[in-house]
Amino acid sequence: MQVVITGAAGMLGLKLVRKILDKGTLAGPDGSQVKVDRIVATDIVANPAMPTDKRVTFVAGDVFDPALIAGLITPGTGSIFHLAGVVSAGAERDFDLGYRVNLDGTRVVLEAARKLGSAPRVVFASSLAAYGGDLPDVITDEQKLTPQTSYGCQKVMGELLVMDYTRKGFIDGRSLRLPTIVVRPGKPNLAASTFASSIIREPLKGERVICPVDPSAQMPLLSPRLCIEAFIRAHELPGSDWGWNRQLMLASVDASVGDMAAALKRVAGQKAYDLIEWKIDPMIAKIVAGWPKRLSSKRALAMGFRADPSVDALIQAYIEDDMPKAG
Amino acid sequence: MQVVITGAAGMLGLKLVRKILDKGTLAGPDGSQVKVDRIVATDIVANPAMPTDKRVTFVAGDVFDPALIAGLITPGTGSIFHLAGVVSAGAERDFDLGYRVNLDGTRVVLEAARKLGSAPRVVFASSLAAYGGDLPDVITDEQKLTPQTSYGCQKVMGELLVMDYTRKGFIDGRSLRLPTIVVRPGKPNLAASTFASSIIREPLKGERVICPVDPSAQMPLLSPRLCIEAFIRAHELPGSDWGWNRQLMLASVDASVGDMAAALKRVAGQKAYDLIEWKIDPMIAKIVAGWPKRLSSKRALAMGFRADPSVDALIQAYIEDDMPKAG
Repeated sequence: MQVVITGAAGMLGLKLVRKILDKGTLAGPDGSQVKVDRIVATDIVANPAMPTDKRVTFVAGDVFDPALIAGLITPGTGSIFHLAGVVSAGAERDFDLGYRVNLDGTRVVLEAARKLGSAPRVVFASSLAAYGGDLPDVITDEQKLTPQTSYGCQKVMGELLVMDYTRKGFIDGRSLRLPTIVVRPGKPNLAASTFASSIIREPLKGERVICPVDPSAQMPLLSPRLCIEAFIRAHELPGSDWGWNRQLMLASVDASVGDMAAALKRVAGQKAYDLIEWKIDPMIAKIVAGWPKRLSSKRALAMGFRADPSVDALIQAYIEDDMPKAG
Repeated sequence: MQVVITGAAGMLGLKLVRKILDKGTLAGPDGSQVKVDRIVATDIVANPAMPTDKRVTFVAGDVFDPALIAGLITPGTGSIFHLAGVVSAGAERDFDLGYRVNLDGTRVVLEAARKLGSAPRVVFASSLAAYGGDLPDVITDEQKLTPQTSYGCQKVMGELLVMDYTRKGFIDGRSLRLPTIVVRPGKPNLAASTFASSIIREPLKGERVICPVDPSAQMPLLSPRLCIEAFIRAHELPGSDWGWNRQLMLASVDASVGDMAAALKRVAGQKAYDLIEWKIDPMIAKIVAGWPKRLSSKRALAMGFRADPSVDALIQAYIEDDMPKAG
């Protein structure tokens, strides 16, 4: 069986490629485990960290290019993980690019999947950016989606497409709304949420870091480790466990930035904690204030998706999985 | 000021053209009333009932044709009413056509509006088909949108686009989720909801009619008269009254089919009532059972949108506005 992964050169994409290589099999159309012979990984640019395993083929290109995608999602493709996307700030800055990649790209992927005629499983990475406007303190599975960013609108449209293509029998789709992924390895990026990883990651290296929001700022968090576990679980669950509702808010550990700093102190000591410099950036603080604060993800938990048990565990997962080893 | 109306040859489109001609002015960008010099009416085919007023120009064509639409939404366009769409059953039958007209067509209209650079007011006709799945008995403004038809998915995507284009300052948009419009003049069509108009309209002409659902089947209704009033009101309200939330569920009179038959008896007598033959069509009964049953439209009522006071009033509006006069 062939597996296609879009956005495969990103942080989560790479981890997903590695996870599927390790696992070796995935649920086939009838639910039984089938050997994964080939992973077709695509993204706009290659990443030298892509595993060199002979089962992996990397192809660079635009996800909104129908000819490219039709050439990747070929007969024998049993599973598609659609992670490609222009991030929130990027879609806000370049309106047309956001729609081209995040909406048109998703349509191109789903059309290629439909053309297979075999209703492959499709896992779509959505986001808490689907929520916006006047939000309650705790978001439940019944919360309506009124996104207040172009990225959020595009993700909700993707979820609707996945649901509609599934209902029509063209694919067997599953969308996951991801909490803020922490701790992201690597360097800070341009996302407004980047500080949530930086305030853990940089002090663990012994480097100073600026935290641009107040310790009381509250966020739902998920480790990359459990996010990858969720992609796999979303794929493996039989369609009957999903029913008609193919949209799922994942479970999170909800923490204030102060909680996160306190957890860092517990895991890495006062010295690490003291490397955090609190210096409010009103613009970032305002963006973060509009985000969901706490999730009550009953459905995800009932379906066996897991939240990190604590912020400490989330830091521990980073140390085990991603932190560059000294010496 | 020029006004562009898509889907203008449809039942509601024609009524809207007439209403704007009668009214003569609409709110301009600064909120003050501006004379309507020209109405550009477009639809796939002409309708001989289109008013011959010299202010009206009709152009036939596809709403998803960017060149056509850019040629209609020209500088000086202060208002756009986007009513064009493939109906529910049509979008279900022809998946590709549904997305081309209902999603791509809406994007084409919004892009043309954006290119004006003047953020024109855009009123978008959405539908209760936006709701689906496991619905509560009463739908509130907080109900999440989980459509279970392609038409419903496309309408929700249109609402999201209208909200996003508005947030970005490209347009000043307003989406209205219409209840089932009753009594529709003319002939029965292929919509599953067509019986809701037929069971009133046909007996009023002295003709027999089959009601395919049980008298207990429950539906939210709105007269064409108050629907047109709502389009105008949606347009005229200042953006500040809408705020960030540009999606609105209209108010309805909620009635069982039995209530509707009883109202017909009150308005037109036992003889009209006896022309209804109750003969359940399980397929139609099943579709109707999945629809919203009752609306609690607090926001619409607070914003001054009106529901018909009773089913009797709704029948009376048909008799006054649309019923062919005897002799």
